[in-house]
Amino acid sequence: MNTTTHNLRVDGSRLWSTIMETAAFGATPAGGLNRLTLSAEDGRVRDWFRDACEAAGLEVGVDALGTQFALRKGRDTSRAPVACGSHLDTQPTGGRFDGILGTLAGLEVMRALNDAGIETEAPLLLVNWTNEEGSRFAPAMMASAAYAGEFTAEDILSRRDAAGISVAEALDAIGYRGDEPVGTRRIGRFVELHIEQGPILEAENTTIGVVEGGQGIAWFDGTITGFESHAGTTPMPRRRDALLGLAEIALGAEAIARAYWPSAVATVGEAVIGAPSRNVVPGQVRFTLDLRDPKSETLDAAEAALRERIAEIAARRNLAVELTRIWRKEPVPFDPAIVASVQGAAEALGLSHRRMVSGAGHDACNLAARVPTAMIFVPCRDGVSHNESESATQGDCTAGANVLLHTLLALANAPA
Amino acid sequence: MNTTTHNLRVDGSRLWSTIMETAAFGATPAGGLNRLTLSAEDGRVRDWFRDACEAAGLEVGVDALGTQFALRKGRDTSRAPVACGSHLDTQPTGGRFDGILGTLAGLEVMRALNDAGIETEAPLLLVNWTNEEGSRFAPAMMASAAYAGEFTAEDILSRRDAAGISVAEALDAIGYRGDEPVGTRRIGRFVELHIEQGPILEAENTTIGVVEGGQGIAWFDGTITGFESHAGTTPMPRRRDALLGLAEIALGAEAIARAYWPSAVATVGEAVIGAPSRNVVPGQVRFTLDLRDPKSETLDAAEAALRERIAEIAARRNLAVELTRIWRKEPVPFDPAIVASVQGAAEALGLSHRRMVSGAGHDACNLAARVPTAMIFVPCRDGVSHNESESATQGDCTAGANVLLHTLLALANAPA
Repeated sequence: MNTTTHNLRVDGSRLWSTIMETAAFGATPAGGLNRLTLSAEDGRVRDWFRDACEAAGLEVGVDALGTQFALRKGRDTSRAPVACGSHLDTQPTGGRFDGILGTLAGLEVMRALNDAGIETEAPLLLVNWTNEEGSRFAPAMMASAAYAGEFTAEDILSRRDAAGISVAEALDAIGYRGDEPVGTRRIGRFVELHIEQGPILEAENTTIGVVEGGQGIAWFDGTITGFESHAGTTPMPRRRDALLGLAEIALGAEAIARAYWPSAVATVGEAVIGAPSRNVVPGQVRFTLDLRDPKSETLDAAEAALRERIAEIAARRNLAVELTRIWRKEPVPFDPAIVASVQGAAEALGLSHRRMVSGAGHDACNLAARVPTAMIFVPCRDGVSHNESESATQGDCTAGANVLLHTLLALANAPA
Repeated sequence: MNTTTHNLRVDGSRLWSTIMETAAFGATPAGGLNRLTLSAEDGRVRDWFRDACEAAGLEVGVDALGTQFALRKGRDTSRAPVACGSHLDTQPTGGRFDGILGTLAGLEVMRALNDAGIETEAPLLLVNWTNEEGSRFAPAMMASAAYAGEFTAEDILSRRDAAGISVAEALDAIGYRGDEPVGTRRIGRFVELHIEQGPILEAENTTIGVVEGGQGIAWFDGTITGFESHAGTTPMPRRRDALLGLAEIALGAEAIARAYWPSAVATVGEAVIGAPSRNVVPGQVRFTLDLRDPKSETLDAAEAALRERIAEIAARRNLAVELTRIWRKEPVPFDPAIVASVQGAAEALGLSHRRMVSGAGHDACNLAARVPTAMIFVPCRDGVSHNESESATQGDCTAGANVLLHTLLALANAPA
């Protein structure tokens, strides 16, 4: 921090009021938000956001997938903007902070710089990415993925929701099919502030998560086939019980993830017995498995260990088990220099902090494929997210916004 | 066996032909039967059965729940008849032997006695119990339960199927609401021949199961409550995963049942995750548990062991587990004298045999509460029942019918 900006802080009360003001768009009786991407409510919060950005002197553009870009000029207009932002859409029973904090904290940063009369060397850019959540249109984080070149805009525009409405039609319905071609907006660096959506920071009483990257993810579909038989007449040793096979596989996945503690996690989230009946030994179970780790090699090793364990279980219980990996996303390392900037800002602000990896996916994880990127986490109550009860304190939101402010200043004022 | 009847045998070919002939009523393309109780197909097989019984000189009556009774007079008409029989209804994708073997073997016994010109001391009675299967109307085995006094006829007549049709209406529709009040038919002894519906006889290459009683059954409903959380952001040690709780409970139930080997069996037949999603740690699981043993004390001990195990799992995993016993049926001991008669018949016929307990429920288990009763089992292929592929050999069916014949002769000709 230089002397001019050393004592600069965001207005935490204004940020909090802004978060609560926009919570009117799609408010649920339980205090959460239902603001599905490209819904009428999403249209209203976008209009509010555009107006607020323009009132802050930013120049707002919209790309062909509806992503909003709000530019604050810098002294050197030839430099690529240093960008921040997140998303304003929510899950159908979402909360007030997921995505919203990062977007509105970016707005608050712009307002604070305006109030202090500070001009940065590089321009600053605030982004509201379309459809981070993926609740209405798949895939999640589609606009940032298209920006990074993972999908074409045409492909994404043709995706349809459960009612058969395409992304293109939904964008037209709320007037957010912009004229800026996807991927053409210049972004030099990207920093995303977000609630952790996990319990670590709260449990350790730490304010700032300095996020070094996104986990790798492997998704599996499994089928266990045994033999349906009578619960009363089939002796225990003669059974080929598919549910007991699942039980051992789920516990085996847990043990393997724990063996890679603290990094790996494994989850059997879905399990369905074929033709279930209380007096029939289950003959078939379908299940899903979600395996994550920050290291590619650990994903490989955990998958190999799991397959070995499954083979042993299947042989011992006389079951046929198929396990198919349906998706794998490699770990996303963030840019070490930006990660260091985030940590430096937290230290300079005297905030408790720790290095961590993002367990969830974020737009920043897509951006990282094209642009040097990092993230800032703040705690959320009980680690709960994607829930109307999602909550974060004003103090933590303010702290996160201040780290964002000083990270952006450091990046934008550094020599080009 | 006395000298008159020592060499008497049923006509195995005629029995087999009869089984195959009646398999036309409700035949499925896959070679099984769909003959739900009181359906039009059930009406047709009942008509066929009545005609065949009358052709064999039997006097056929029908009670108010449609159960058919076919009487063969004895020398001493004051003696209560020695009865046999089973049921002619099937599961929607049932087989050709479950219930049918016992009923048609009874018919073959009558025919064989007629052919040999043999009159027994006590009368003989052949019964076709209404709704053994319970697929259309609950409960299963309702007519024999009403006969034994467990339900009133009025109660049973008012039960409705999924389409809203009552038992009374279904009986009227096929003309089988008889005028004989339920429970008034005299039965002195009851013997039921049935396929084992389990794998033990086949595995041990044994022809005859001498059934000493029916198992006790305890049914439980359970709910495991943990906490739904993000599969990517929740470290393994912080999880309260309800599915992993179920996994340990199911494996614990298996271990407890095996500790009481060879008698006890335990089955988790249904398990449903609340709001399942592949990237969410399961927060709730509902499940069922079926626990059986021939001894009441073992049921008690196994339940106590299971509850202790569950308490340990719940405490260690920070889960709330509720386990409610929703039904318990005490073990049904069969009459030792009739069991000895069955064994004596098998020995005299030179058939391999073993004592065993019925794992499934049967009309005989209900009858035993009122009438001295026993059962005879024969093997079925792979232990499979309630399936269109259900199968038994002609040799085993013949052997079972011969044991039934000689058991009935011994009982009916014994001094009153």
